[in-house]
Amino acid sequence: MGIMSEIALPPGFRFAGVVTGLRSEPGRRDVGVIASDRPCTAAGVFTQNRVCAAPVRISKARLPRNDARAIVVCSGNANACTGEQGLRDAERMTAIVAQGLNVNAEQVLVASTGVIGRPLPMAVLEAGIPKAIAALSPDGLDDFAHSILTTDTRTKTTRVAVEIGNATITVLGIAKGAAMIGPNMATMLGFVLTDAAVPADALQLMLRTAVNKTFNRIAVEGHTSTNDCVLALANGLHPVDAFDFEMIAAGIEGVCRNMAEMIISDAEGAHHVIRIRVTGCRNDAEAETIARSVAGSALVKTAVFGHDPNWGRIVSAAGYSGVMFDEKDLSLTMGEMLLYQDGTPLPFDAAAASRYMKDNREVVFELQFTLGDGSCEFLTSDLTVEYVNLNADYTT
Amino acid sequence: MGIMSEIALPPGFRFAGVVTGLRSEPGRRDVGVIASDRPCTAAGVFTQNRVCAAPVRISKARLPRNDARAIVVCSGNANACTGEQGLRDAERMTAIVAQGLNVNAEQVLVASTGVIGRPLPMAVLEAGIPKAIAALSPDGLDDFAHSILTTDTRTKTTRVAVEIGNATITVLGIAKGAAMIGPNMATMLGFVLTDAAVPADALQLMLRTAVNKTFNRIAVEGHTSTNDCVLALANGLHPVDAFDFEMIAAGIEGVCRNMAEMIISDAEGAHHVIRIRVTGCRNDAEAETIARSVAGSALVKTAVFGHDPNWGRIVSAAGYSGVMFDEKDLSLTMGEMLLYQDGTPLPFDAAAASRYMKDNREVVFELQFTLGDGSCEFLTSDLTVEYVNLNADYTT
Repeated sequence: MGIMSEIALPPGFRFAGVVTGLRSEPGRRDVGVIASDRPCTAAGVFTQNRVCAAPVRISKARLPRNDARAIVVCSGNANACTGEQGLRDAERMTAIVAQGLNVNAEQVLVASTGVIGRPLPMAVLEAGIPKAIAALSPDGLDDFAHSILTTDTRTKTTRVAVEIGNATITVLGIAKGAAMIGPNMATMLGFVLTDAAVPADALQLMLRTAVNKTFNRIAVEGHTSTNDCVLALANGLHPVDAFDFEMIAAGIEGVCRNMAEMIISDAEGAHHVIRIRVTGCRNDAEAETIARSVAGSALVKTAVFGHDPNWGRIVSAAGYSGVMFDEKDLSLTMGEMLLYQDGTPLPFDAAAASRYMKDNREVVFELQFTLGDGSCEFLTSDLTVEYVNLNADYTT
Repeated sequence: MGIMSEIALPPGFRFAGVVTGLRSEPGRRDVGVIASDRPCTAAGVFTQNRVCAAPVRISKARLPRNDARAIVVCSGNANACTGEQGLRDAERMTAIVAQGLNVNAEQVLVASTGVIGRPLPMAVLEAGIPKAIAALSPDGLDDFAHSILTTDTRTKTTRVAVEIGNATITVLGIAKGAAMIGPNMATMLGFVLTDAAVPADALQLMLRTAVNKTFNRIAVEGHTSTNDCVLALANGLHPVDAFDFEMIAAGIEGVCRNMAEMIISDAEGAHHVIRIRVTGCRNDAEAETIARSVAGSALVKTAVFGHDPNWGRIVSAAGYSGVMFDEKDLSLTMGEMLLYQDGTPLPFDAAAASRYMKDNREVVFELQFTLGDGSCEFLTSDLTVEYVNLNADYTT
């Protein structure tokens, strides 16, 4: 019984990603479909934004369920802030897929990502979605993974195998996300597929728990999007005893963690991954609050971009997090260097500290408190000139 | 009875700003002193950061009081995260001033701004502060205003006259601040001087109220500093009836508002001031929460920098603010252009919208809700390539 790192795809799923012309870049795949040969239990975790996109509303209303058969995704247009028309369009996307697969529209889930506030060009999708249905294949994963990207520079897929007795169960994850990554569901799409037999309610709990520990502990710029969504399908090929649910849950969490790390690693314009470890807090929730505050600081993120060991910004971001502590409760290390101990700054080699940031793509800050056992690890990226330029002219 | 916009300095105060060598730039003024000829009532509002600088702790412990005589400020070094030594150094700064003015150290307030986590070079200050005392003059305001700046590109002073009966009372404000401007006291220093006779407790209430409505409604990048501090001195030359406190309070609020607008206008690397008006909320607090969320969005701020009318980012930032609303409750205008009405996007001229941002240094977004009478106006700046470069190598 254990988790391995490389494995075949879960059987019973087919994938497609096609070029429909929804995006202006020629040859860019923009519509993807995942289809299951069998009815799946299905679960989902969605954005906490009050303004949520039409596909989020449609998918949310259809979950959890026991008979899901497909997921359809379009990229380039978020179908968010599109009013009643947006809801009709998202429903129509699922109906086109249902017709092609000879199932009910209710059995199809939908997700979108891209620019907010523009009506979907339905003529393009009426022609394009059937093209995706026709292209469905067990070998289509890479096409699908490409079709959901926006500003991502690479596809994000990950597989974990869970061995239970003599059986090997697979969990596959496919994600997109590079910006609008914020707290309370990172701005991203994620799809988790497994061949385990897990009831929908248990799958929902596993997915929610995994998301809280993974996607909800990354941030690029703290902007929670309108379209966040992680969907899970379990096609039940492998029966699982309830005593083994813990293993499946660990597999789902592992896949979500890998996807979350891939998203931060591909964050828009990023030169660095910043790993923030907070230990010794009264509880995990306070540790997470502090970590999120440090991760959200534009001043911490620009300092890392500039290889500037300006550690006072980290301490001050902890200080305004809202968590009560005294300065003497806090020590800070960057990599192996202790910079601040029990509320007092230590002399340190600024050139060596700067070199540490220059030489390492991943920079680790550890804030050690003396208040208890609570801890949290949080990932963010540096704030770079490229990030600003990328986001200065996204729609125009 | 009314408020005028230009007036003489309040009598009874002297100012100095001198070059001590605390900062590395040659000829840069880095120590400032304000001295009052008479004992003043004094009030202060300070950072809500748990990690607060030594001068904040010292000044806070001495307020409110009825016999304040001076304020001493150093720039270039924040004296924050400096442990017990930092507290001793901040106290010593006030003792040097007290000796020069022949008053008690307790009657002197202190503020600092600059790099966090470095011990103050006390030998420099032991020699430099007496130089400032010697330079004190009723004409020294400009020198003082220069001495408190860090990355500011210009000094920030403002005067309001309040006429009560035949008397004219003056309120003078002097501020610094260009970044690390966040909620819960912007990262800044502000000094408010008046010749009115206002008891310390009333002065404290006036200052707190004014700060909540002004400095606490601006943000550059949302990083609440360790050193925020607004100090007020009232030297009592003009007796004021309690019935006229409302006028004095309005004068103080006017001065604070002018200082807050000057800070945003000089925000690090900013090309634009972004004025966010939120109306029609259930109450002012919810309107402020929404405004702060929009003002804190790196994606909104980069879009303005790029003249990209990507209004979906504004709506989505409102959506994740935590305030409950439905999309149909919200309409959005940029300048005079209605972009989104009752939850539905309107067709608009993207080129004209982009031109509006290009042609105007101040860009106005108004989010109109249909939930009540609550409103808030909030100011922020755009996020530019220059901001990132400025903050990438601040200490090194």
